[in-house]
Amino acid sequence: MLGEFTYVNPTRIHFGKEALAKLPGELVQYGDRVLLVYGGGSIKRTGLYDKIVTVLRECGKQIFEDAGVMPNPTLEKLREGIQIARKHEIDLILAVGGGSVCDYAKALSVSVHCDEDPWEKYYVRFEEPTCPIVPVGCVLTMVGTGSEMNGGSVITNRETMRKVGHVFGEAVYPKFSILNPELTYTLPEYQMKAGFYDIMSHILEQYFSGTDDNTSDYLMEGLLRSLIHSTRIAVKNPTDYEARSNIMWIATLALNTLVAKGKATDWEVHMLGQAVGAYTDATHGMTLSAVAGAYYRHILPYGLPKFKRLAVNVWNVSPDGKSDEQIANEGLAAMDAWMEEIGLVRSLAELGVTEDMLEGIADATFLQEGGYKVLNRSEVVEILRASM
Amino acid sequence: MLGEFTYVNPTRIHFGKEALAKLPGELVQYGDRVLLVYGGGSIKRTGLYDKIVTVLRECGKQIFEDAGVMPNPTLEKLREGIQIARKHEIDLILAVGGGSVCDYAKALSVSVHCDEDPWEKYYVRFEEPTCPIVPVGCVLTMVGTGSEMNGGSVITNRETMRKVGHVFGEAVYPKFSILNPELTYTLPEYQMKAGFYDIMSHILEQYFSGTDDNTSDYLMEGLLRSLIHSTRIAVKNPTDYEARSNIMWIATLALNTLVAKGKATDWEVHMLGQAVGAYTDATHGMTLSAVAGAYYRHILPYGLPKFKRLAVNVWNVSPDGKSDEQIANEGLAAMDAWMEEIGLVRSLAELGVTEDMLEGIADATFLQEGGYKVLNRSEVVEILRASM
Repeated sequence: MLGEFTYVNPTRIHFGKEALAKLPGELVQYGDRVLLVYGGGSIKRTGLYDKIVTVLRECGKQIFEDAGVMPNPTLEKLREGIQIARKHEIDLILAVGGGSVCDYAKALSVSVHCDEDPWEKYYVRFEEPTCPIVPVGCVLTMVGTGSEMNGGSVITNRETMRKVGHVFGEAVYPKFSILNPELTYTLPEYQMKAGFYDIMSHILEQYFSGTDDNTSDYLMEGLLRSLIHSTRIAVKNPTDYEARSNIMWIATLALNTLVAKGKATDWEVHMLGQAVGAYTDATHGMTLSAVAGAYYRHILPYGLPKFKRLAVNVWNVSPDGKSDEQIANEGLAAMDAWMEEIGLVRSLAELGVTEDMLEGIADATFLQEGGYKVLNRSEVVEILRASM
Repeated sequence: MLGEFTYVNPTRIHFGKEALAKLPGELVQYGDRVLLVYGGGSIKRTGLYDKIVTVLRECGKQIFEDAGVMPNPTLEKLREGIQIARKHEIDLILAVGGGSVCDYAKALSVSVHCDEDPWEKYYVRFEEPTCPIVPVGCVLTMVGTGSEMNGGSVITNRETMRKVGHVFGEAVYPKFSILNPELTYTLPEYQMKAGFYDIMSHILEQYFSGTDDNTSDYLMEGLLRSLIHSTRIAVKNPTDYEARSNIMWIATLALNTLVAKGKATDWEVHMLGQAVGAYTDATHGMTLSAVAGAYYRHILPYGLPKFKRLAVNVWNVSPDGKSDEQIANEGLAAMDAWMEEIGLVRSLAELGVTEDMLEGIADATFLQEGGYKVLNRSEVVEILRASM
């Protein structure tokens, strides 16, 4: 049953090979002082930086820079960015990069004019902004996080070893996002594959909850089928535009809040992955793929009908003459096989996690209540150990 | 392959049994002079009218009325509404009713401040508004058209016997729509069922185009599976909230532009149905169900792989040992069986169409180019005849 909800998503998406041509039409709606936010400089190597600077100049903008946003953006970096944005009285933040850059841009957008400590306000007390918000636009170069069309923003506090996500309301959503699948071709294969599992995890974490009949679950089955199909093509031929464009759009739809409407959601795999990320700086998607198998096998008995449904409707498992457990387990085996085929990390050890970190990671893991089983701390340790 | 597109949908949806409680929060954003637009007065019998008037008064609004919007709203009625809205210098149009009332409200919203003839500007030349647009909000009492979250507006010109839809840009979308599935319970069974086929037709008309691999098609398969499942429950028990709430949300998602993104679309069944509507005033959804069978059998040879895919992925036809034609035809037979089960009109004669009308209906039928076969006029007559 669809529960009560309000749905609106104000982000304007420009999608396709020519999507960057829509940037001037967006820029004209904002003030002249643009803060260009980006990561380690790969956009300079690919030529994207030059293209965007040219567009900004042609639109008469003053360009200021906040570079060096890292894969798991830190509070320390955020504090730097706030100083830069305040000093230059920024009118628009233009984030060019992947999910980390978009997440960071959103955190910055609600912190520039905030008198309180942003970590305490947004990532400890989870309050909504009460200050003016600097508008954000995105040019996406990596697929997976969905940050381009939602209010999510994950920041890591290195001092306290906490990686925490705040899902902000629509006022913090990017005003526009430019999605050109070709801009994602230059991404290293490892990052591309990590993004693929991030997408699958986003969908599964919303799918694995509830026992009712809900249109959102049917939509997610469609997204999963398309994702499985297209990722199999993309790992063989990373420049297959059809596959990469489908994957890019699936990633956005998986986490633009639409498929969660009217239903409970889980998100425990993300909580585990984020805790791992706070300890290792491992690539986000791979922290999820490393723990997912153990987690799903742990909760399967509590959500058997949904695991069975996934097996049949998404993984094409034939149910004839099999028990529900058998069908559900064949579904997970099919997921394992797909993960192997895609080339995902399947163990925490491979990400640099050592036995002595497990208790600390367990301490850093938020326990969610929307899924089929609310974990206790010892179950978290058990799942982490099984993922080594 | 996903083609180039821009996607944004500014309508805020409030969904659920308590959705009407969100109305005051919306009303406060607009001026005091509200035009209440509704149909034949069924909202007075159900008590909804009183509830809404109470909310409007509590919010300090001045209420003006434009009642009597008919199932196929006419240009004549629109001209009346323009006079009312101008006279009272309306700040907000609140449409309470089904798709016709929403469509009419949107037509009115772009005509109040328009100096030109609205029929000529919007329904002959298909121009976008160049005047200020009066904001529209909706309280939906019938499911099917999707008008609550898009820019579509169909108006009938009785003088020229033309029923024409204009798909306006996002500035004309409702600012908000209140979707309470329980408000649709009072709808007569015939109208409810007509809405069910309207939804299916919206999805199929976007599904039956293109030969590429496209995430939008997977989403539509999910929507169709959910729709088939829930409509079978709803015709047996029209007050099954789970089924009716799923159907209401599917209807919105089917036509809020999302599933059309990046792909071609057909819409010929709607063109045939609208031409029938201009001649008979028959219920919209039933004009579609009456012609769909003959139309799909006519175009099947031109889109065989997609008809086969629909049969397997949506109608659960087993493909083993069968030719593509056989699989595709079994899919259409399954659709026929579902249509019988739901109780849809399957012949134009039943809607009051007579042989002497067929040439006129064919003249009034727009020929679309996005589907598997661009019809010529004699094919239109052939399909209409086969639908008698």
